[in-house]
Amino acid sequence: MQSTHKRWVIDVTLTPPSLGDNTGDADRLVGHLRKQLDSPNVALDRAVLLSLPSLLRENHYRVRCVLCKDLGTWEVIALTGQAEDVPMAGLAVDLGTSRVVLRMVSLEDGQTLAETAFDNPQLSVGADILTRIHHTDTTGGLAHLQELIIAGLNRHIISLCRHADIGQQQIFLTAVAGNTAMTHLFLGLNPHWMIREPYIPAVNRPGLTRAPDLGLEIHPRGRVLVFPNIGSYFGGDLIAGILYSDLHRREDTAILVDVGTNAEVVLGNQNWLMACAGAAGPALEGGVTKMGMMAGPGVIDRIDINPETRLFQIHTIDDQEPIGICGSGLIDLAAQMFLAGMIDMRGRLVPGQCDGRYKEKDGMGYLVVIPGDQSGSGMDLTIGQADLDSLTRSKAAMFTILETITTTVGMTMEDLSAFYVAGTFGSFIRPTSAISIGMLPDLEIDRYQPLGNSSLGGATLALTSTAAVDEIDTIRERITYMELNVNQEFMNRFSAAKFFPHTDPSRFPSVKVWET
Amino acid sequence: MQSTHKRWVIDVTLTPPSLGDNTGDADRLVGHLRKQLDSPNVALDRAVLLSLPSLLRENHYRVRCVLCKDLGTWEVIALTGQAEDVPMAGLAVDLGTSRVVLRMVSLEDGQTLAETAFDNPQLSVGADILTRIHHTDTTGGLAHLQELIIAGLNRHIISLCRHADIGQQQIFLTAVAGNTAMTHLFLGLNPHWMIREPYIPAVNRPGLTRAPDLGLEIHPRGRVLVFPNIGSYFGGDLIAGILYSDLHRREDTAILVDVGTNAEVVLGNQNWLMACAGAAGPALEGGVTKMGMMAGPGVIDRIDINPETRLFQIHTIDDQEPIGICGSGLIDLAAQMFLAGMIDMRGRLVPGQCDGRYKEKDGMGYLVVIPGDQSGSGMDLTIGQADLDSLTRSKAAMFTILETITTTVGMTMEDLSAFYVAGTFGSFIRPTSAISIGMLPDLEIDRYQPLGNSSLGGATLALTSTAAVDEIDTIRERITYMELNVNQEFMNRFSAAKFFPHTDPSRFPSVKVWET
Repeated sequence: MQSTHKRWVIDVTLTPPSLGDNTGDADRLVGHLRKQLDSPNVALDRAVLLSLPSLLRENHYRVRCVLCKDLGTWEVIALTGQAEDVPMAGLAVDLGTSRVVLRMVSLEDGQTLAETAFDNPQLSVGADILTRIHHTDTTGGLAHLQELIIAGLNRHIISLCRHADIGQQQIFLTAVAGNTAMTHLFLGLNPHWMIREPYIPAVNRPGLTRAPDLGLEIHPRGRVLVFPNIGSYFGGDLIAGILYSDLHRREDTAILVDVGTNAEVVLGNQNWLMACAGAAGPALEGGVTKMGMMAGPGVIDRIDINPETRLFQIHTIDDQEPIGICGSGLIDLAAQMFLAGMIDMRGRLVPGQCDGRYKEKDGMGYLVVIPGDQSGSGMDLTIGQADLDSLTRSKAAMFTILETITTTVGMTMEDLSAFYVAGTFGSFIRPTSAISIGMLPDLEIDRYQPLGNSSLGGATLALTSTAAVDEIDTIRERITYMELNVNQEFMNRFSAAKFFPHTDPSRFPSVKVWET
Repeated sequence: MQSTHKRWVIDVTLTPPSLGDNTGDADRLVGHLRKQLDSPNVALDRAVLLSLPSLLRENHYRVRCVLCKDLGTWEVIALTGQAEDVPMAGLAVDLGTSRVVLRMVSLEDGQTLAETAFDNPQLSVGADILTRIHHTDTTGGLAHLQELIIAGLNRHIISLCRHADIGQQQIFLTAVAGNTAMTHLFLGLNPHWMIREPYIPAVNRPGLTRAPDLGLEIHPRGRVLVFPNIGSYFGGDLIAGILYSDLHRREDTAILVDVGTNAEVVLGNQNWLMACAGAAGPALEGGVTKMGMMAGPGVIDRIDINPETRLFQIHTIDDQEPIGICGSGLIDLAAQMFLAGMIDMRGRLVPGQCDGRYKEKDGMGYLVVIPGDQSGSGMDLTIGQADLDSLTRSKAAMFTILETITTTVGMTMEDLSAFYVAGTFGSFIRPTSAISIGMLPDLEIDRYQPLGNSSLGGATLALTSTAAVDEIDTIRERITYMELNVNQEFMNRFSAAKFFPHTDPSRFPSVKVWET
């Protein structure tokens, strides 16, 4: 999202030495780069130094440098002649707990060369990150987890390279954005103390690591940038998201929301950034109801209910027969049921408004969304009162977090010029639905902007713009992290937000429930 | 020679983390060091990072750090608990073409733990550096030369460690001072272009190298500082010499002279430094005459001739029977012969004044210094007219270089408050003798100060004072290197200096020839 970029690959043409200018080869290159990069600290990787005298002369002092930068020092990690013209690539990694996304880009022009994604192989140890962290307390557990993710990356690097027709040794830089636990497991760092009071990660700012130190099979002098975190519960994926959103460069104040089991929120502008994270509950990931699942073929991602006819119009991914529902589908379902009067403002099913869909089992009410004869599995797809209660708590937590952080900085949500929603959730959710249930504030719809995979987007920026890497540290330093105090004020807000859309409907003027 | 030192090993006591201060382990240590070192750029070696979380907690946040620094960035390369109390050592290396001297020092208190010296194993390829550089053009030649010096160092590191009763892994830092060619061979850098116009070394400022990259068997994360050079003909040994002499911190102007096959001269004070190097000829190393040799047992290092009786009083190293003469002995011999009237002011043997010692062979005169029946070899030790002519040219070159550099900065040699003479030559030479033949200017004797092994001394300082390492770059940047133009003015000076002591004896008022 930046307009002008300095690339990590630059061409350099040096003045050849003479009796009047007998600076050494390395110092000649370094001196030139100091000026070109406007930095006093430029170093050469030892392998570059070893090859330098011949390489300069063979190429008539016209060379191409691959650079990296850490702690204010630039380093030349590879060098070729300008005429060689081999593609030089970087690898952006969104290192998710469940899913890993890779994007290979050209370091020269920033173009995307190939993309792929795969399930995090650590799922074999445990689906949730806590199980994995506990696994590191067993003998060899940390090494095993690191090997799983590195091996998975290496396998998919090979396939990316085959697809883009370049060699693995042509990948020089890798940028990795993930949550704090995932980046620790990736780096082989002990996460033991992250989950124990006072919740201390081994590192906040990992900086650059050499690819061979991690076993990552790219260029042997390749460097790996791992995005910094703010703490155990605010990871580099969020810093990447801020970088990608440009939140930190806006004149007006905006907000960035990443919704998952944790809701992570950053509010700010070019002068300040305020962040917080809180448990929003698994409901928003579609993880509560038996029919909940991650987005995939046959998963319901959108539902419309005609309030008059009560007919359900279902959309599934790839138009397959429905087999489950994802987070955004669940929010659509709840919103449409609420607007059609099928649930009340407390989130309770209204049996009389549900036509024949309302059932009971063991004294608990539930609603049949898809009867077994229309589902992909042959089983009824249902949503129960307990599921709705869970969703209600999650959406209330989300809204309370948003209200708390904006209030803390002395603003209202109406003051926010843009509302970035990150991730798959942001891409699939219909803001109107989220507003209808009172999960997101009742702002004009065009203030809501899906960011897509902002973690991958930020990692990509780090590979295509040297300025972006400087900004990473600036962002990290500028963020004030606010611990969410679950105090009486928070609980009051939470209680008020447990209504659909809110105890104070005047805050949601656009939400109109069908009147029968 | 510096009074206050910051050491490379420092103890750090961190405030343990708490809920109100949940900075990561690495960032907690880095943050503390940033303040303690007053530097924004502090990094941790990856191995340190990996061990950090456990190590901090086991040692109750009281740790000892081994640091290094390059390009403004400090790095923690090793970490232990404060209670462990293992000695931490550094290794200073004077990397001479002929001789290598090692000194092991404590990084904690700067004390010398052990010293040793050995002949440069590259002598097996060639005694002079040019032969070795040509050898690098053969297949595997460069690798062979590097292996020779590294293997030699490793052998002697083992013996030093045995002597000091410490493990090789307890050596964390190495500082290497040598001429530009030797440091290239040590680093495995191609010196091919150093000896070809326009005489370009691969690198001027090698900075830090990791010990394993060189095959140096110290701590696996040990770092090697190679002193920077100014060019192919002004090496890191001289920069180390300046550092050791404190020339760069003096208020008044002084001069530092290192005499060998090349004479290297630095003139300056705290504001500026001017350097030049020129061929002084091998005579000053005792390398011309058949009886010339390096200092060692049985080598004549001092001669007195009673001008009245013409009796030779000979001193040899270790009082062994004489077998040869070293550079300082040769200068003594020439000076004493001149003062006794045995050679004239053109440096010609005066047969009538040499008693029975004058002989001729093939029409060339020579003088028997030690008859065969008194020598260790049973052979006459002699000095011929050709040897004397060579010495005359060498001493004239030396004096001309000194005169040229002082004149260039608008001074006279009398303006120099101190005259540092480096190396073995400086330790053994009698300034009166060098003045008598007009090699050095006729200054008060107490202005002459032998520096000893200033190359080793400078390397030692780099290990015992962090400030000294900063000064290395400052010195290098402050030096103006003057190319010696062998123009008419230079030749005029050279011709005048080819007399004993000079065509203008009034410049050497203290030199009185015995009048018969």
